[in-house]
Amino acid sequence: MAQAVRHDAMRARNLSLVLREVRTHGSLTRASLAEVTGLTKTTVSKLVGDLLDAGLVVETGAVRAGERGRPGVEVRVSGDRVAALGLELNVDYLAVRVVDLARRVRLRLTQTVDNRLSEPLDVIGDLRRLALSALAQAEGTGLRVVGAGLAVPGPVDVESGEIHSAPNLGWRNVPVGAALDLGVPIRVENEANLAALGELWFGVGRADFLYVSGEIGIGAGLVVNGALFRGARGFAGELGHVVVTPEGPQCRCGARGCLEQYAGQDAFFDAVGDRSPYAHGIDAIVAQLEHGDAATLAACDKAGWALGVALSSAINLVDPHTIVLGGIYAPLFPWIGGVVAETMGGRLAQLRAQAPPVEVSQLGSEAAALGAAGQVLETVVADPAALSERLTDRRDPAPR
Amino acid sequence: MAQAVRHDAMRARNLSLVLREVRTHGSLTRASLAEVTGLTKTTVSKLVGDLLDAGLVVETGAVRAGERGRPGVEVRVSGDRVAALGLELNVDYLAVRVVDLARRVRLRLTQTVDNRLSEPLDVIGDLRRLALSALAQAEGTGLRVVGAGLAVPGPVDVESGEIHSAPNLGWRNVPVGAALDLGVPIRVENEANLAALGELWFGVGRADFLYVSGEIGIGAGLVVNGALFRGARGFAGELGHVVVTPEGPQCRCGARGCLEQYAGQDAFFDAVGDRSPYAHGIDAIVAQLEHGDAATLAACDKAGWALGVALSSAINLVDPHTIVLGGIYAPLFPWIGGVVAETMGGRLAQLRAQAPPVEVSQLGSEAAALGAAGQVLETVVADPAALSERLTDRRDPAPR
Repeated sequence: MAQAVRHDAMRARNLSLVLREVRTHGSLTRASLAEVTGLTKTTVSKLVGDLLDAGLVVETGAVRAGERGRPGVEVRVSGDRVAALGLELNVDYLAVRVVDLARRVRLRLTQTVDNRLSEPLDVIGDLRRLALSALAQAEGTGLRVVGAGLAVPGPVDVESGEIHSAPNLGWRNVPVGAALDLGVPIRVENEANLAALGELWFGVGRADFLYVSGEIGIGAGLVVNGALFRGARGFAGELGHVVVTPEGPQCRCGARGCLEQYAGQDAFFDAVGDRSPYAHGIDAIVAQLEHGDAATLAACDKAGWALGVALSSAINLVDPHTIVLGGIYAPLFPWIGGVVAETMGGRLAQLRAQAPPVEVSQLGSEAAALGAAGQVLETVVADPAALSERLTDRRDPAPR
Repeated sequence: MAQAVRHDAMRARNLSLVLREVRTHGSLTRASLAEVTGLTKTTVSKLVGDLLDAGLVVETGAVRAGERGRPGVEVRVSGDRVAALGLELNVDYLAVRVVDLARRVRLRLTQTVDNRLSEPLDVIGDLRRLALSALAQAEGTGLRVVGAGLAVPGPVDVESGEIHSAPNLGWRNVPVGAALDLGVPIRVENEANLAALGELWFGVGRADFLYVSGEIGIGAGLVVNGALFRGARGFAGELGHVVVTPEGPQCRCGARGCLEQYAGQDAFFDAVGDRSPYAHGIDAIVAQLEHGDAATLAACDKAGWALGVALSSAINLVDPHTIVLGGIYAPLFPWIGGVVAETMGGRLAQLRAQAPPVEVSQLGSEAAALGAAGQVLETVVADPAALSERLTDRRDPAPR
């Protein structure tokens, strides 16, 4: 019995190894897979057969002459069967993305809202409707949605799916994962963390960076060697509450002088003199900047300076390779990137040869929902055996 | 040939595995080692034989009846053969420690100095004399010193052993590892990083904490799952240059309002009105505090407040499980710990259920030198095979 368990564990590990190598290389023959994994060709053929049966890989049709032996058919990750739902519940929008195992985005639904000081159940109900609609559409095209990831603007207990506190929603201790009830497993996570992972898997493609999420709140996600750094209790990355000036303006978190009060979306729009960005949108702000509007340019300088101050603290503490600015900082980058880099550089010049480069996010506000979906897909790649068991065991394939 | 290399690599890995398990459990029989490692008893016996030959483990003499089969002799890590040198070059002292593989401190040499704005070669010469004396004494007792670790107060290029910048010494780009020239491999590292590792291996024994090193400079070492977090370029943990007030007093690093200007040893002694701490020592300060001296108590409050502000930024960013205050903060802890915890707690209260606990270092200013030695011992445990080859190959056993 112990032997059988061991065999299953080894098979599970090898299935994951093979799937991972196929993804890394784009496509591979069974012979090449045997070479890169160190497994025998017989074992690889069996494992590839299982992955084909589960719909996780597909033969490309391309035939390549191997270095030894007869030509082989290549396999690649299949985007036709397994998919994941990426959800974001934020202060001013709800977003749903369906992403397949080949990391193609198959469906995008976004709804503009104002969730400030909202009733959690109302907002969760809105998101649920959007998510169920996406689920139905995805399953209608033959995709099997195996799980959902949900990005929320605040620290989360990942185990229980409970939001600990989301000051900008006015929520505390909301069990959002359980309340959403989509009929598929849901993993809830802080939006900045997921945006960082989105950037890792769908955007800049670097393996070491600090992603800065400029939304109503400001979060950060630290990616180290291709993995998210979560901290001891999962609360790492609260860049928005890093001190800019200890006796500065009162923050919604209860402290004073937090970065969010200088460079958060609300503070920024206040400085611009525009309190209705949800009507005008960031595009209007960008247009003002393009026309050289002095107040808007000054608001960028102020926000950029504060961001540079807080990032210099972050760089001193965690030494990220690169800074990636996302959220509203992505469209504002041409006007804000320079002052951020200058402020950082000025503070850091003597301690290190050079400050980390400041780059713009490739995904903007889509990053978190993509990261949420990507995280579900990672669990599939980490343990394809568990998924094929689930697909086989499940008697009721349709989501409730 | 490829097969032979594989066999050597497997043996090396298994030697490390066995040595690690022996250390973790304190002592184990060969039969128990076979159980915990999953290796066969024959393999374990061969590996234990090799470790005995290399002097890395020793039989305890204790005989324990196994669950199955005949009673076995237990082995434990041997402290009698292999040792490491831990060095610290700091602004106001030089320290040398000899630590054996069983993590016992065998020799302590400390020299009080004033290295501010010093000539690197003079200071390195002083440290070299101290280290050679320790080496000779250690080898005289039959220990083989297999390497040295050196802690320095500033960011380091670990690869080259070069100090990038040590503002409080007035040094830039000093290849201290090469200059020290002790006849054993030397690994140079930031003192706060090594103090954190010292605390991990010789002190509090936790696996997740942020160690704060209060010296002339203030550094921090983040330990995550029992490993040091170094950052992308190895410069993580520069807590002393986290912003307290962006336009505050000028710091030696070139920026303004860094934590060091509020809570570093010099700033603290300035606030106390005592510029000769090297004459009077921290003990005099502690005596003043015990007598309720108002200026000294006020200096503790100011330093503790600034430390609490900077730590709240650090906690928001990296979410450590526990804060461990070391260096001068260890003797000052009864007067500084409370205000640090209060300031942190006040800023963090609404974002998380509770702020991380603040604890006092178990090692004080000895932490970095112990961590430096401990890091060398870790390389032995990680690859005992490499060491036994080196011991065999080396024609000239005495250090130059």
